[in-house]
Amino acid sequence: MAEIDKKREQIIESAIRRFSHFGVQKTTMNEIADDIAVSQPSLYYYFPDKTSIIVAVVEKVSNDYFEELEKILAETECLKDIFFQIIEFRRNFVKKFFMMHLTDSSADAIIRDNCDEILQESRLREIKIVAGILNSAIEKGEIAEIDAENVSAIYLDSLTGLCMWIISKNQKNIFPESKHWDAMVARQRELAEIFLKSLKYKDRSTCKV
Amino acid sequence: MAEIDKKREQIIESAIRRFSHFGVQKTTMNEIADDIAVSQPSLYYYFPDKTSIIVAVVEKVSNDYFEELEKILAETECLKDIFFQIIEFRRNFVKKFFMMHLTDSSADAIIRDNCDEILQESRLREIKIVAGILNSAIEKGEIAEIDAENVSAIYLDSLTGLCMWIISKNQKNIFPESKHWDAMVARQRELAEIFLKSLKYKDRSTCKV
Repeated sequence: MAEIDKKREQIIESAIRRFSHFGVQKTTMNEIADDIAVSQPSLYYYFPDKTSIIVAVVEKVSNDYFEELEKILAETECLKDIFFQIIEFRRNFVKKFFMMHLTDSSADAIIRDNCDEILQESRLREIKIVAGILNSAIEKGEIAEIDAENVSAIYLDSLTGLCMWIISKNQKNIFPESKHWDAMVARQRELAEIFLKSLKYKDRSTCKV
Repeated sequence: MAEIDKKREQIIESAIRRFSHFGVQKTTMNEIADDIAVSQPSLYYYFPDKTSIIVAVVEKVSNDYFEELEKILAETECLKDIFFQIIEFRRNFVKKFFMMHLTDSSADAIIRDNCDEILQESRLREIKIVAGILNSAIEKGEIAEIDAENVSAIYLDSLTGLCMWIISKNQKNIFPESKHWDAMVARQRELAEIFLKSLKYKDRSTCKV
């Protein structure tokens, strides 16, 4: 990796650590630079302002998400396992990066206004991944013929919605308790079962869950 | 109705009008009193502070919700129609009372902290209503045997989640545009179809939708 890219990566990694622990709003450019002993002029050479770092962070986190998700799914055979793996993977992801959103709504606004395109693309990318899985399940005769892309979109949007709804009920504390994450996952798994039923999914003995 | 109850109702109605147009935070006790020409001492006799009005408003709105919902559902025969009616009814309700939540998060906090019990009861009450409908569909042989209460909870939580998720994508504007409401309803209807499929629902010719 060229020196210039390496420095850029280091800054992004430093920002990810700060953002996910203290939130976007509570992190300053100085702190990001100090953590990795980068001079301020050097930092501003790579990122002229905090918004540009935020965009780079969201891009990196999103790419890492898909890289890891695809790795996990490649190792999973059974559709039911895959559905449950996605839920577990999302839980861990939301937990890890929870602070990037929550600290306050102005941080949310910066992310929303500047990362809208990345976030939309990420949603479509995940829909495509799940649709691919459903299509191969159709080919294998595991489920009935469906519009895979559409079902994937409904499924993933519903999972996201359940996550928001259950977490929103606990906004008294800045960080949801363990029982709320569990409640969310439990509800999402129940929804997965409903979807599998509607797909006329034929359970195979290879399923681990 | 006794005079004392009538005055109390008038105050609540006035608060509902103000809250749903300008939001909880932007409404003062004075404005509520002025709208219906009630003296301030009289207002404070019924409601010692704004929080107590908010609680009464949420209680009243919730009761009206169920009264009207039950009326609509009593006139609907077919399960698919009922599922779609619930979605339409919820859309109109959320649209009408959107400002009660949105103005700012401190208003949300007051509602959450003081109306938690009412809101939880409302959720359970709606689950019970839908479960009753599912149970009667089981009896009529329209759908397969299921844990009706649990399926109702998953269904309603998922609808609520989809509503939150789709509306949250448009928080640039204080009030979602018509296309966002439509997108929400479209997605919710698709989810309803998935649920109906999973319930092995047998479509009847009486269905209007």
